[in-house]
Amino acid sequence: MRAYDIILKKRNGNALSKEEMEYMVLGFVKGEIPDYQMSAFLMAVYFQHMNKEERAMFTEIMAHSGDMIDLSPIKGKKVDKHSTGGVGDKTTLVVAPIVASLGVPVAKMSGRALGHTGGTIDKLESIPGFQTSLSLERFFENVNKYGIAVVGQTANLAPADKKIYALRDATATVDEISLIASSIMSKKLAGGADAFVLDVKVGSGAFMKDLKSAKELAEAMVGIAKSHNKEAVAVLTNMNQPLGRFVGNSLEVLEAIYTLKGKGEEDFVELCITLAAWMCYLAEKGSFEKCLEMAKDSLISGKALEKFRDFVTAQEGEGEVIERPEEILPISGKIVEFKAKQEGYISTIDTEKVGIACNYLGAGRSKKEDKIDHSVGIEILKKIGDPVHKDDIIAKLYISEKSDLETSLKLLNDAYTITNHPGEKWNTILEVVK
Amino acid sequence: MRAYDIILKKRNGNALSKEEMEYMVLGFVKGEIPDYQMSAFLMAVYFQHMNKEERAMFTEIMAHSGDMIDLSPIKGKKVDKHSTGGVGDKTTLVVAPIVASLGVPVAKMSGRALGHTGGTIDKLESIPGFQTSLSLERFFENVNKYGIAVVGQTANLAPADKKIYALRDATATVDEISLIASSIMSKKLAGGADAFVLDVKVGSGAFMKDLKSAKELAEAMVGIAKSHNKEAVAVLTNMNQPLGRFVGNSLEVLEAIYTLKGKGEEDFVELCITLAAWMCYLAEKGSFEKCLEMAKDSLISGKALEKFRDFVTAQEGEGEVIERPEEILPISGKIVEFKAKQEGYISTIDTEKVGIACNYLGAGRSKKEDKIDHSVGIEILKKIGDPVHKDDIIAKLYISEKSDLETSLKLLNDAYTITNHPGEKWNTILEVVK
Repeated sequence: MRAYDIILKKRNGNALSKEEMEYMVLGFVKGEIPDYQMSAFLMAVYFQHMNKEERAMFTEIMAHSGDMIDLSPIKGKKVDKHSTGGVGDKTTLVVAPIVASLGVPVAKMSGRALGHTGGTIDKLESIPGFQTSLSLERFFENVNKYGIAVVGQTANLAPADKKIYALRDATATVDEISLIASSIMSKKLAGGADAFVLDVKVGSGAFMKDLKSAKELAEAMVGIAKSHNKEAVAVLTNMNQPLGRFVGNSLEVLEAIYTLKGKGEEDFVELCITLAAWMCYLAEKGSFEKCLEMAKDSLISGKALEKFRDFVTAQEGEGEVIERPEEILPISGKIVEFKAKQEGYISTIDTEKVGIACNYLGAGRSKKEDKIDHSVGIEILKKIGDPVHKDDIIAKLYISEKSDLETSLKLLNDAYTITNHPGEKWNTILEVVK
Repeated sequence: MRAYDIILKKRNGNALSKEEMEYMVLGFVKGEIPDYQMSAFLMAVYFQHMNKEERAMFTEIMAHSGDMIDLSPIKGKKVDKHSTGGVGDKTTLVVAPIVASLGVPVAKMSGRALGHTGGTIDKLESIPGFQTSLSLERFFENVNKYGIAVVGQTANLAPADKKIYALRDATATVDEISLIASSIMSKKLAGGADAFVLDVKVGSGAFMKDLKSAKELAEAMVGIAKSHNKEAVAVLTNMNQPLGRFVGNSLEVLEAIYTLKGKGEEDFVELCITLAAWMCYLAEKGSFEKCLEMAKDSLISGKALEKFRDFVTAQEGEGEVIERPEEILPISGKIVEFKAKQEGYISTIDTEKVGIACNYLGAGRSKKEDKIDHSVGIEILKKIGDPVHKDDIIAKLYISEKSDLETSLKLLNDAYTITNHPGEKWNTILEVVK
């Protein structure tokens, strides 16, 4: 077998065999196939795509290139949730305690901020004392004892994907459905859950800007899961404006706690309830409708909040954060207002720019080694369709001395469009792919 | 400027600017742009192609990446001929003396055997004493004195093309018209001629197997030449069977001398006359029809043969080769016959296989460092359309002790098809692209 022939075969639009896929991926990981052949191969895949079988094989090979987590020490059916990434997406902080309170074990490995999107692990680290790196033993112990644990990814999950992704990132071969889907699903498969709820974000703040491509991605991911005899539900959700009210690390934890206390924003609450219900459904807790009721009840009754408290204290976080989040969380007291320059309606929000503006305040990283400032962020007061008068406050910026305020304000200014007519408001839940 | 953005732009089907092309090509040559970005770029070009302007710019940048030969010390209009490569293609050996005898200066840098095709320089070195590496001064001197000189490529012509070609060869990005055309023409432009006759071979022994793709390539090359204000004529010619009677180094020199003595095969004579006429036409020696008559006359009258003698002796070759080629040239006396297995007509010849069979006898190289055996080769006695009886001799193999006779015979056996009906005979000259 030769890499050249495999590139040629894919270039000519033919489907590859499992042996060919393995030769290519594992050869690349071992350094036997050079970068330049892999990048030519990836560009050929960009144009010729992969069929369903190829996607499944490619994903499996990447998953098995590193550790395969065995979640069997945890009792019950393990359902994982994955978000394709958004702005203000603190969903895990609310969904995880809801489902845990309903008896679905949550053994979650989460990521850090990437590009313009935030990361659950960075957010959790806003809570004083909170430990995001537990040994695998303690991780399992916590899940079995409290029904919930959320840690950073420590295991060597899908190293082939990591190496291939770095090359895709440098060669304009990131945005191809098969490659995106297999990249995500290889890590999910290695993570060891029995079923997956996939929150596929759509819109200006998401990787997928339009519903069509988001649906393709959702179908590809669900297809890969099913090819591996794992159940999966993909929920296409609105990321055409920031989710909820806050963007930033401490601020998003604050919003999660408000929401768990029954004071959440409508869009965010709807999203959390829906995703939690699908997780419960896949964990065989009843029909989707019944699960939806259970999820709502958990939130309203305060059961989810109590589970959140268990979770935080079990991972050595300051439990008082639940009672006095504004005091315990490091939230900047220095606030700058971003005001409307004219009268009208908010018609569009370039949400990616809002995410980047937040990074310029200090909430994100441009390099892996960068330190995050948990205290900064943006409070969104006006969203699409809202009427505004000149000088109405659209957003509040929580800043620090290191914030690049000028760039952030410029980005926000570019992000918001105000016109004479209210913009098109999207539903929170756009579609479900099963 | 970033390589990433240039790859992305081409991937998305957009035309690149000259600055972007330069950034990519020169950055790659300098080692500032890594192989893996260039190979992804080349694969993107494979799918999205280049427009006329891009081809011209890409060619120019590659041409200027190394030496640009200045042919101004040579008087008169310099017309170069290029062949895309074939089997039994000893054309230069006859065309060059014809046009030189008609007052068109021939200052030719030729190549060596590549893949299944032969090379003029290797062929010339069959003549005892013949020097193929002359200093640039002596090269010019010979052309001005005798009207003709043919040397190996010593100058550093289009090193960018060389580096890019090596990468294309490893990443299945060779066969794209823009890349092929710019690769050939970059070296031609650097070679410094005023006009070009391009012999684009078509058929089973050529790089381009069908007329359509050969015509596309011809149009691309002529277009590139014109973009650089150089005249060019591309002649699409039959390479669906070996050209003339002999394949191999000494044997092809032998055939060239026979042809210059007026005893050439019909197809080969027609090709030589036509190409010579186009070269004279571009050198402004008259109408094409007039040039054709002049070329025929040069061959019939023996003027071309005398020019060949001047040429050989000027480059220190044994002049006696003209009188006694069979004795002077190293031609193997060990001959094996390849016979028809059945009665019928020769219907097809996989000519590439004939070229490879010749290589297995020792006439070619599989690595750059390999030594060529000038004495071996194949004499073709039957061509497409010829009737054969069982055991008729189709070809004679001139072999040495190092020949892999078994493989050669197997390849010849695979190459020839004998059926009940004569195969489709192609014309020697298929089309002209101006």
